[in-house]
Amino acid sequence: MSGAGMSEPSVGGAEAPRRRVTRDDVARLAGVSSAVVSYVLNGTPKPVAAATRQKVLDAVELLGYQPNQTARALSLGRSNVIGLVISDPRNPYFAELALEIDNAARAEGRTVMVLNSLARRGGGSMHIAGLSQQQLEGIIIADTLSEAESETVRSLSVPVVLINQFFANKGFASIGVDHFGGAYMAVRHLIDLGHRRIAFIGGNPGIDPREEGWASAVRDAGLEPGPAFHVPFELEGGYQAGLALADDASGVTAAFVASEQQALAALSALQERGFAIPGDIAIVAFDGTTCAAYLWPPLSTVAQPLRAMADDAVRRIVTNTAHEDYTSYPMSLVVRASSGG
Amino acid sequence: MSGAGMSEPSVGGAEAPRRRVTRDDVARLAGVSSAVVSYVLNGTPKPVAAATRQKVLDAVELLGYQPNQTARALSLGRSNVIGLVISDPRNPYFAELALEIDNAARAEGRTVMVLNSLARRGGGSMHIAGLSQQQLEGIIIADTLSEAESETVRSLSVPVVLINQFFANKGFASIGVDHFGGAYMAVRHLIDLGHRRIAFIGGNPGIDPREEGWASAVRDAGLEPGPAFHVPFELEGGYQAGLALADDASGVTAAFVASEQQALAALSALQERGFAIPGDIAIVAFDGTTCAAYLWPPLSTVAQPLRAMADDAVRRIVTNTAHEDYTSYPMSLVVRASSGG
Repeated sequence: MSGAGMSEPSVGGAEAPRRRVTRDDVARLAGVSSAVVSYVLNGTPKPVAAATRQKVLDAVELLGYQPNQTARALSLGRSNVIGLVISDPRNPYFAELALEIDNAARAEGRTVMVLNSLARRGGGSMHIAGLSQQQLEGIIIADTLSEAESETVRSLSVPVVLINQFFANKGFASIGVDHFGGAYMAVRHLIDLGHRRIAFIGGNPGIDPREEGWASAVRDAGLEPGPAFHVPFELEGGYQAGLALADDASGVTAAFVASEQQALAALSALQERGFAIPGDIAIVAFDGTTCAAYLWPPLSTVAQPLRAMADDAVRRIVTNTAHEDYTSYPMSLVVRASSGG
Repeated sequence: MSGAGMSEPSVGGAEAPRRRVTRDDVARLAGVSSAVVSYVLNGTPKPVAAATRQKVLDAVELLGYQPNQTARALSLGRSNVIGLVISDPRNPYFAELALEIDNAARAEGRTVMVLNSLARRGGGSMHIAGLSQQQLEGIIIADTLSEAESETVRSLSVPVVLINQFFANKGFASIGVDHFGGAYMAVRHLIDLGHRRIAFIGGNPGIDPREEGWASAVRDAGLEPGPAFHVPFELEGGYQAGLALADDASGVTAAFVASEQQALAALSALQERGFAIPGDIAIVAFDGTTCAAYLWPPLSTVAQPLRAMADDAVRRIVTNTAHEDYTSYPMSLVVRASSGG
C-alpha cells in the first residue's frame, strides 16, 4: 500500500515494503533444502545437525523470516502503522488532534505512533531518524518543516500529509483551517457584543493569519486594533500575556487568544488580578479542544473540525493519495460563558 | 543492546536485533560474487546484466541491506527508538510523563514513539501489533496489562518497564509512586487547615490506594470519611463529580481529587454552582503536572517526581537492566491557592 519502493527496490530504505520472504529464501541463504528449514522451524521428526540448525536460524534472523500470522501480513510488504509528528504533547490542541487521528486510524485498522518534535525548540532537528528506522505506512506531520527536514521526509518514500498548516507546502499534501476566517469570526462575535477595544494574544508576530484576522475584523468595524501580546505557545506564555493585559490601561474590554492553551493560563492570570471574566474582560479563543469546555469560565472559541481533518489525513495515507495540494477547512464559533455571549 | 534475541535468534520477531547484514550475504542470496554486488550498488565500471542486477537488488531488499550511514548503525542490531504506551493523550498527566520520558531519552540519544492505548476502553486490546512491527530498543508502558498483553509484550524480546504502577507486576520492572502516602499527605494537609469533613473524588472504587490513603488520614485524625465520588478519569467525570459535590448537603468543606484532570473539571463545576474555591470548598489534587499551576485557582497538589521516574525508566531500557522489581518514588506536597494553605 505504501507506494514507492513497491516496484523499485530502494537501497538504504529499511522502511520500504519488501516482497514476502519465503522458506525457499531461507533455504538458499543457509545453503540447505527447504525441507530442512521446515524441520528446524517446526521440529518435525528428522534430526538436524547443530551446525546446520544454526545456519538456518541465522538465515531466518537475517531475512526476518516470520512464519507466524502477524508476520504474514507484514511480509506482504504492508505496515499498518502511521507515524504522527506533533510538537508539544502538553498542548491540548495536539492531544486532541492525536486522539482524533488515532480514532480515524483505528477505524481503518491502523495504529498510530506519535513522535514529539519539541526538541526542535532547543535548536535540535526533528527526529526524522526515529521515523526512518520504523516500518511506517505513512506519516502525518502537525508541524512546520525546514527545507532539510522536507528533503528527509520525502526520502522516506511513504505518503506524507502535513496538518495544522497555515498555507500550502510545496511537494506535500497539506491540511489546515481558515485561520484568518476563524479569527475574524471570533473577533466579529466580540464586536457584535458591543466591545470596542479588543486585544490580541498569540505567538510570533507577522506570520500568523489569526493576527491578520483579528486586525481586519476590528478595522472593518471602523475600530482601532487594541494591543497585541506576542508570547510563546505555552502555558507560561499565556499567563504572562494575561498579566500584561491586566496591566494594560488602554480600556481593553475583550481579547481574542490564538490558542486555547494560552487562553487557559491567561484566564488564570486575569482572575488572579481580580478581573471578572467576561464582566471585565471577555475572551474568545481558537482551537476547539474538549478542555476548553471544562475551564472556568468555559471558553468561547472558534473550533477546528478536528475529526474531519483527521479522517482526511488518514484517508490520504491509507489510499496513498497524499498528492500536493492544500485543503482548508472552515471553522465554527462555539459560544460559552467566557465571552458573555 | 536490547538483550534477548542477540544470542538466540527468535523466529517471528522482526524487531529482534540482527547481526549486521553483509555484502557477502547479499551475494550468497543472489547467487553472484561479492564484487558484482558492489558493481550494482556503487555503479562501478563493469556492466552487469539486467537479470543479474535485478537478483542483487532483490536480495538487497529482502535482507534490508543498507550500505549507508544510518543503516550501518541499524544493522549493528541497535534501534535507538523507545516505545511508550500511554492511555489518553488528553490527560495532562500522561502528556507530562511523555514529555519527561522524551527529555530523558533525548539525553541518551534516543527517540521516543508514543502509542495511545485508549482504544482498550472500548473493549479493544492494546495495539501490541503496532509495537511488534517496529524496531524498538525497549518499551515503557504507563498502563495496566492484561495477562494476554503481558505475554505478548514479553514475547517482543526487548526490555520493558511499566510506569505509573500501583504495585509490582510479575515478570516486569515496575515504577510507581507511593499513592497511599501521597493521598495521605494531601488529606493531612486539609485536616491541618481545620477541615473536618473531606470528600474523595477518584476512579474505580476498591482498587485505588489513593482512596485508602484518604480514608486512613481521615480516620487517623478521629474523623469520619466524607462522601466518595467515583467517576471516570476524564474531564467529564471530574465535572460530574464536582456537580455531585455541589449537591451534597453533608457539610463537606474540602475534597481530595485523585487526578489533576478530574480536578480541573471539578473546579469548573463547583465555580459554576457558585462555590468559592477554597472559601467554600478547598481542593487538593494528585499528579504534579504543569497545568495544575495555571488553573484558576492554581491547584494545590501532591506531585510525583516525574523527571526522576522518567530518567529511571529510560536508564533501565538503555542499560538493559529492566529486571523484575518495583520502585516506589516518594511524593511531595505543593501548596497553591486551591487549598487556601
